[in-house]
Amino acid sequence: MDIGVVVFAQAANQASLGVAMPSDAPQPAALAAALAGRLIHDVMGPLSGVISGLDLLGDPTARDLHVDALALATASARTLCEDMAFSRVLYGAGAAPMDAASLEGLARGQFVGGRATLDWSMDLATVSATAGRTLLGFVRLAAAALAAGGVVKVNARAASPGMVLSVEATGPRARFFVETLTGLAGAPFSEGLIGKWAPAYQLWAAATSSGGTISTKVSETGVVLEARFPG
Amino acid sequence: MDIGVVVFAQAANQASLGVAMPSDAPQPAALAAALAGRLIHDVMGPLSGVISGLDLLGDPTARDLHVDALALATASARTLCEDMAFSRVLYGAGAAPMDAASLEGLARGQFVGGRATLDWSMDLATVSATAGRTLLGFVRLAAAALAAGGVVKVNARAASPGMVLSVEATGPRARFFVETLTGLAGAPFSEGLIGKWAPAYQLWAAATSSGGTISTKVSETGVVLEARFPG
Repeated sequence: MDIGVVVFAQAANQASLGVAMPSDAPQPAALAAALAGRLIHDVMGPLSGVISGLDLLGDPTARDLHVDALALATASARTLCEDMAFSRVLYGAGAAPMDAASLEGLARGQFVGGRATLDWSMDLATVSATAGRTLLGFVRLAAAALAAGGVVKVNARAASPGMVLSVEATGPRARFFVETLTGLAGAPFSEGLIGKWAPAYQLWAAATSSGGTISTKVSETGVVLEARFPG
Repeated sequence: MDIGVVVFAQAANQASLGVAMPSDAPQPAALAAALAGRLIHDVMGPLSGVISGLDLLGDPTARDLHVDALALATASARTLCEDMAFSRVLYGAGAAPMDAASLEGLARGQFVGGRATLDWSMDLATVSATAGRTLLGFVRLAAAALAAGGVVKVNARAASPGMVLSVEATGPRARFFVETLTGLAGAPFSEGLIGKWAPAYQLWAAATSSGGTISTKVSETGVVLEARFPG
C-alpha cells in the first residue's frame, strides 16, 4: 500500500470526513502560493516534452528522429493547452451560470486517453459558476483516482433548496490520497498545505465562501464527493 | 494618458499609499483563483507562440518557413520555461534563506532582451525566503514598468532591527498601474481582485503574514518599492 494513499479495499471502514471548519487555516498568501506552485508543476511536465521535442528538431544529426520529435512536441503542447483551458474555467473569476453542455465537454476531456469512463447525468440546464467549478474539480480528482480504470458517475440535480451535485469514482484499483479528502474537508494538513493538495483545499475554500458545503464518503470500491449549494 | 496608469511626469504629487489593512480583503479562495488565473494567462502567451510554430512545422506546404517556425517555437518555449522558473521561486513554499547570487541571477533574467537595466547592490549574503521573494516580485514589477527603458536600482541592507530592501524604477516613460500600488498596499480594489493585480496583492499578503511591511512612493520619474522585515 502506498503511503498516504487510500486503497479502497483496505480502507472501507474509514469514516466519512464530512466538513469541518479549520482552526488553523492556511494564510491567504499560503493558499495562493501553494496553488500557484501546483499550476507551475503541472506546466513543467508537458513543457519538458515540448522542449525535448524541439531540441531534437533543432539537431541536424538527428534527422531520422524529426518526425517523432515533432509528434512529441505537438502532443505535449496540446496536452498543456487543454490542461490550461480546463484550469482557466476551474479557477475562473466569472459569476455567470455555466451550462450543462459546456461542463460535460470539459469533463469528458479529463477522460481522453485514460482508462476510466464518464457516466454523466445532469437534470439542470445551468448551474451557478461556483457549482460548475466544484463539479469540474471533483471530476478531475475522480479521474486522477482511476488511472487503473473505473467509472466516474456524475449527477447534478435540483434540491430543496438549491442544488446538489455528486461525483462517484469507482474502480477495482481506485486510489485517492488521504490529503485530498483532508483538503476537501477544509481540515488542517499535518505537514502544511503543499501544492499537491492545494486544488482540493481550493475547492473547499471556494465552495464554502459561496455558502456551499462539501462532504466525502469512502466506500469499498471508491469515493463519493458531494457538494450542496443554496438556491 | 492611459486610463489606470500612473504616468510619472503627470502624477508626481500623488501621495505615498503606505500600508493599510484592508477592511474588505478578498477571500482566500478569491486570491488563490486570481493568482492562478494570472499564471494561466502568462502561460497562454508564449504557449500560443509554441503552437503556431509547431503548426507550421507540421505543414508540408510551408517548408520554406520551417526554420523560422522552429525558431519561434523554441524561443517561445524558452521564454515560458524561464518565466515558470522565476515564478516557482517567487511563489515557492520553502523557508530556507536565499543567497544574494541566486537572487541577482534571477533578477537579471527579468532584463534580458528588454530596454531597462539593473543596478544591483546587496550588502547581505543571504536574506529570508519571504524577503527574497518580495525582492524578486518588486524587480518583476519594476522591470515591467520600464518597457520603454530606464534603471531599476536594487538595494538590500541590514537595518536595526531586521532588514530593509528597496527597488527603485526610474525611466523617462515609466508606467506603473495604480492598481499595482493598491495591491502592494493590501488595499481593496474598487472593481474586485482580478488576475492582473494578483501578483502585487500576493506580495503584500505574503510579506505581511511574515511580519513584514511594504510601502511605495511615487516620484517625478518613477516609483520606489520598499519592504522591511523583522530580524
